[in-house]
Amino acid sequence: MRNFDDSRIMEQTVSSEHVFDGLILHIDHLTNQLPNGKLAKREVARHIGAAAVLPVDGDGNVYLVRQFRAPVGRVLMEIPAGKLDYRGEDRLAAAKRELREETGLEASKWTHLNDLLTTVGFCDECIGVYLAQELTRGESHPDDDEFLNVVKLPYDEAMAMVASNEINDAKTVCALALARPFLEK
Amino acid sequence: MRNFDDSRIMEQTVSSEHVFDGLILHIDHLTNQLPNGKLAKREVARHIGAAAVLPVDGDGNVYLVRQFRAPVGRVLMEIPAGKLDYRGEDRLAAAKRELREETGLEASKWTHLNDLLTTVGFCDECIGVYLAQELTRGESHPDDDEFLNVVKLPYDEAMAMVASNEINDAKTVCALALARPFLEK
Repeated sequence: MRNFDDSRIMEQTVSSEHVFDGLILHIDHLTNQLPNGKLAKREVARHIGAAAVLPVDGDGNVYLVRQFRAPVGRVLMEIPAGKLDYRGEDRLAAAKRELREETGLEASKWTHLNDLLTTVGFCDECIGVYLAQELTRGESHPDDDEFLNVVKLPYDEAMAMVASNEINDAKTVCALALARPFLEK
Repeated sequence: MRNFDDSRIMEQTVSSEHVFDGLILHIDHLTNQLPNGKLAKREVARHIGAAAVLPVDGDGNVYLVRQFRAPVGRVLMEIPAGKLDYRGEDRLAAAKRELREETGLEASKWTHLNDLLTTVGFCDECIGVYLAQELTRGESHPDDDEFLNVVKLPYDEAMAMVASNEINDAKTVCALALARPFLEK
């Protein structure tokens, strides 16, 4: 593991003001001291965290979900995912729950791919991203008022949809791309 | 291109309330009608958008920046990136600016990798992600009060840091993974 000298780029928080409480986001305005001694204001949105999972069956098919996403006003194609039930919840346990709830699948082989920081400029959201293999069918229990379509398609077709800019969701792009070496074994 | 029937999962916005104006984020609470007729509240953070670029030289080295990120309270390793100067700014132009400002590099070969949606559950942020090749050295003009260290390392070492969970920034993971086929040519 390479070592980096970060001593000249560190910031110190000198004060913090809580400015917004929302349904998902809780926002602080930090006043940070920069390396040159000046002060800068940093907007920081606190998020509880999430887990996501790419399920791949023995034939090399992936299961994605199509879901309407209000922020972008359209339906996106994503890996199954969901917020943690509470801060600090085990992300693998949450990934197993979301896989079961959204697709009805269970998996006996789990591989951790990354703890993804989605948008580090303004938010602390971290998504534990997993690969799920050796799938069996359980029962689907979608959340009340969660409407989604599960789509099964070959891994290569999903990767082609990333390359053609038809899949844009960051956790989904990462999971598909990072899973490749594990699928070639 | 495959067609999907999304008719049973669409939502319709019936009202919208603007609830927060921050330094970066502007938050609306939408009331959406679900496919079953019920109403649900959706928290939507509006973001101006951003551009990011993975620079790769002729020897297969990538240039990443180490930067303190207030939301996570530590230094992260990321591809050069920045917010758009105004909504609707050309993302490629913004990527060229950020590359120049943060690393002092210019590039004559640009490849669009994806328009990444960073966190679709609550935010509309879209990052245009590019690969920059055929690099030449210009002059670095970091923003005032932007402190970062540029790190040059082999592509394979960067990918190893993704696999070992040392690189977690989503746009960086995506860019590194999506660039691979273009580097093997």
